[in-house]
Amino acid sequence: MEEDNAAGPSKKALKKAEAKAKKEALKAQRAAERVATQVSNIELEDDPAKDNYGTVTNPTFSADAEEVELRDLDESYDGKKVVIRAWLQNSRTQSAKMGFVELRKGGNWTIQGLVLATITGTGAESQLPAEGTPVISRRMVKFITSINPESFIAVEAQVKRPLEPVKSCRISTLELHITKAFVLAAAPPVLGMTMAASSQPVANFSDEEPKAEEEVKKEPEAEGGIPAASMLTHLDNIAMHKRAPVQQAIATQDIRIEVKRLFRSYLEERRFKEFEPPCLIGAASEGGANVFRLAYFGQEAFLAQSPQFYKQFEIAGGRERVFSIGPVFRAENSNTPRHMTEFTGLDLEMEIKHSYTEVISVLEGVLLHILRGLRERCADEIQVVRSVYPSEDFLLPEPGKEVRLNFAEAQKLLREEGPEEFRNVRDDEDMSTAQEKALGAVVRAKYNTDFYVLDKFPETARPFYAKVDDAGTTVGDNVRVTNAFDFFLRGQEVLSGGQRINDPKELEERIRAKGVDPNSEGIKEYLTTFRQVGVPPHGGGGIGLDRVVAWFLALPSVHLAAFYPRTPKRLLP
Amino acid sequence: MEEDNAAGPSKKALKKAEAKAKKEALKAQRAAERVATQVSNIELEDDPAKDNYGTVTNPTFSADAEEVELRDLDESYDGKKVVIRAWLQNSRTQSAKMGFVELRKGGNWTIQGLVLATITGTGAESQLPAEGTPVISRRMVKFITSINPESFIAVEAQVKRPLEPVKSCRISTLELHITKAFVLAAAPPVLGMTMAASSQPVANFSDEEPKAEEEVKKEPEAEGGIPAASMLTHLDNIAMHKRAPVQQAIATQDIRIEVKRLFRSYLEERRFKEFEPPCLIGAASEGGANVFRLAYFGQEAFLAQSPQFYKQFEIAGGRERVFSIGPVFRAENSNTPRHMTEFTGLDLEMEIKHSYTEVISVLEGVLLHILRGLRERCADEIQVVRSVYPSEDFLLPEPGKEVRLNFAEAQKLLREEGPEEFRNVRDDEDMSTAQEKALGAVVRAKYNTDFYVLDKFPETARPFYAKVDDAGTTVGDNVRVTNAFDFFLRGQEVLSGGQRINDPKELEERIRAKGVDPNSEGIKEYLTTFRQVGVPPHGGGGIGLDRVVAWFLALPSVHLAAFYPRTPKRLLP
Repeated sequence: MEEDNAAGPSKKALKKAEAKAKKEALKAQRAAERVATQVSNIELEDDPAKDNYGTVTNPTFSADAEEVELRDLDESYDGKKVVIRAWLQNSRTQSAKMGFVELRKGGNWTIQGLVLATITGTGAESQLPAEGTPVISRRMVKFITSINPESFIAVEAQVKRPLEPVKSCRISTLELHITKAFVLAAAPPVLGMTMAASSQPVANFSDEEPKAEEEVKKEPEAEGGIPAASMLTHLDNIAMHKRAPVQQAIATQDIRIEVKRLFRSYLEERRFKEFEPPCLIGAASEGGANVFRLAYFGQEAFLAQSPQFYKQFEIAGGRERVFSIGPVFRAENSNTPRHMTEFTGLDLEMEIKHSYTEVISVLEGVLLHILRGLRERCADEIQVVRSVYPSEDFLLPEPGKEVRLNFAEAQKLLREEGPEEFRNVRDDEDMSTAQEKALGAVVRAKYNTDFYVLDKFPETARPFYAKVDDAGTTVGDNVRVTNAFDFFLRGQEVLSGGQRINDPKELEERIRAKGVDPNSEGIKEYLTTFRQVGVPPHGGGGIGLDRVVAWFLALPSVHLAAFYPRTPKRLLP
Repeated sequence: MEEDNAAGPSKKALKKAEAKAKKEALKAQRAAERVATQVSNIELEDDPAKDNYGTVTNPTFSADAEEVELRDLDESYDGKKVVIRAWLQNSRTQSAKMGFVELRKGGNWTIQGLVLATITGTGAESQLPAEGTPVISRRMVKFITSINPESFIAVEAQVKRPLEPVKSCRISTLELHITKAFVLAAAPPVLGMTMAASSQPVANFSDEEPKAEEEVKKEPEAEGGIPAASMLTHLDNIAMHKRAPVQQAIATQDIRIEVKRLFRSYLEERRFKEFEPPCLIGAASEGGANVFRLAYFGQEAFLAQSPQFYKQFEIAGGRERVFSIGPVFRAENSNTPRHMTEFTGLDLEMEIKHSYTEVISVLEGVLLHILRGLRERCADEIQVVRSVYPSEDFLLPEPGKEVRLNFAEAQKLLREEGPEEFRNVRDDEDMSTAQEKALGAVVRAKYNTDFYVLDKFPETARPFYAKVDDAGTTVGDNVRVTNAFDFFLRGQEVLSGGQRINDPKELEERIRAKGVDPNSEGIKEYLTTFRQVGVPPHGGGGIGLDRVVAWFLALPSVHLAAFYPRTPKRLLP
């Protein structure tokens, strides 16, 4: 319990006061809205155009008007009457008789609409247009140009070619001559984050809540004077965050889902079968660190950190080649742009016939298929992202010139060609993130690629299930190397994999050597499976989907690649 | 802390003793195995065929032998030399010179192999075969026919047509004349569950652990004398559970994954975009009952019970039509064959143009696409399942004759044509599971379909976000009906859906009317999103993947449809 401090109001009291003030502001705003609605309803009464506009839930349109999506509008619609449902993105008044709007739908399909009063004169002198011409009043023009941006509206309009292309819109060679306009869902007069702000690069990714209400509004300004918003503001305005074309291109619409699609199609063509590992598991099987725990009907349950054991159970169960796409969890209190507590794993596991390099080849194949596929299929989306987050072209190796380095070779390269500070890196110790990035730069300069494989990690750097190299190769201080590897994009790890031990005796030895109790919960059941049946030689790997998207696009944070980034401080929305 | 009871040993002590006994039995078994290996190694020394068989990790084969998967073997291989990796399913000795094996791979592709000694005579009188003929000794025949069933082996063999078709194998018109055989991963001499037992219907689905060790072995016997195993035994022997063709057909291989594929392809063709809702959420948003809670860096986190709010956020974010496929969680202590704590949801949400019946049409379309697609694409797998779990053909409505009943109509039908006990069911109260099943029988008899829709549920039976019927229709005791519906397979619910409230004022009213505090965590943020931006009219639904698979196949439990069923008492493996 926090006591009020005599020196001044407590934090709690301050927060309460703020909340109350906010509530009352909201109340006042709503009251104002109600009055405004009443006024406009009264004004409407004597408007001959009154049936052609308004705020209604189920408007009616002319029988000969075709409902069409913005993305489907093409020259064949020139001259036709259509109904379009879209977001009103912008509007301006040219004169009392004429207004312009910009409509948006389907991510970033935009078009210009214009509305021109057909009732001439004003007041008592006003005259209706000739029979057959749409009835449009000045009030209707005013109504349309006063709609709050980001409201969802439906318009009836005639499609026409504009006098000259409308450069500000994606659909530039057509425009809509609006004859009816209805607000289906009104946005409030003031948005928590405007479209312009949402379309700027995120100002900062700090997870810390700002200390006082004031600071929320003091976002730094980007070039051009449009204020950029922090990631917290983006998340507080999740719908506006998602409506920005950059976000539609990255996560909400195309690139992220395309990675999954490319992963799946490549593997299905090669006879991999999908399976679904559980999220809830009965034991913190992979060591117990960084695992979420929960009460489970009198037991304890854990959230899976990877589908590792389950992929192997599938192989033991005769599945030959499997893949999974699903959430994995890490209870790591890391507040960096590289970390999340929930992310999506793209995993695979396969029987090995002759050598674990069969696994490297499949994984290299699928990652190159993804990276090349993105360049080909998402060229437009990549351009949208780059217009907000500029990046250098991602360098892909030419076919047949893929780069695979042994861990020890890579460390040597780093010692010899990397920065001063890495002159003493060892072949028997894992790499740091800084080392990885430095190596990325060296490899890029030397081999002209942003994608490469590091193989034969020392066993000190790998979990107990990693199979040790058959030839007995050692590095550094007599440390054996494993048939295990990592893949890198722009010097950042996106994949870990390797051959797994399939012999139960060897597995038990390694478990003990790593200081793990082979009879501990989870481990015991894992070992039992290998003892219960013959398990063929196998290997696999896991790809971090969020990281592939983020590093391929050189985004400043992996949080931008997720639909709803989960961080230690943030679970909403 | 449990104290030892003076009257006898405590449960704990008993368990400990059992565990110790088990451990020692295992030790003894392994010692015996080691001795056996040594003996066979000594015997091998003087065998002229010794390079052609054994237990090795990386055997070599003839350069002219082609590695081929069982499923790819066809008549074109007649006469060719091949290498096959597979599970040894069965073996028998015809004579000291000849043995037969049955190999299995890729789910349920099976083939017969035979091995015939080419070294004539025995002991000192033995004679090697002519140059160019494979060298096969009686010891080699003995070795092969002594391999423990379910070991993973590699054989080199000549493919030949058998004298008559091998009826017991799926590949019946070819057999393998084995010339080399190596055990790559040995199964133990005694399996925890044999393939024969695993292929029987599961004996019972009780989640209760048997009280004493004895009972585990006393499984009821199925017809034909092959013992059936309980679900617990199946889960304790997860690899053997998965290897059975029936399980491969249901979950591990084909039918379950095909449902996902059909769901995705139907929706993608109709411009639905995939998205990924989070599992970790910051508030028990849908009421708070049956939700898993966990400690989250000083806060509390919850596991999502459905992607409901997130689907709606996507619509608010301008996505138009979205779907998701992923895990959802229910902390419900229900130990029935219908319940699991983690299952896979197939969800969709879409903008509505004119009427919520657009949503019903899409959902009806996708479910019929799935059900028809399964019949067409998984005919073989369905037969495999039926051979173990017999079921009546699933009756699908003819195109254009889909059955949609209003809730009140359905209750009337139940009162008038259902069993006695349901003569007084009310139109303003939700249905029980028993009522649903009874209705399923009535509908089947009347309309000749196992698939139908119940629409217009009373608002008492739906959550706060369900949109009330615009016409103001009421049923029973003046209860309004909603634009919400359920879909049924064989009288069991597999889908819930409806139109959602998109107006923030209406939503707030309904939240209050349902007795929920609109300022409670989760709800507040949900409401805020609707206030922050205009949200178009929308609706959707969620399909339970596990249930679709289970009820379509008329399985005795939904647990059989899952890869790793999670129940209140069971989280392993």
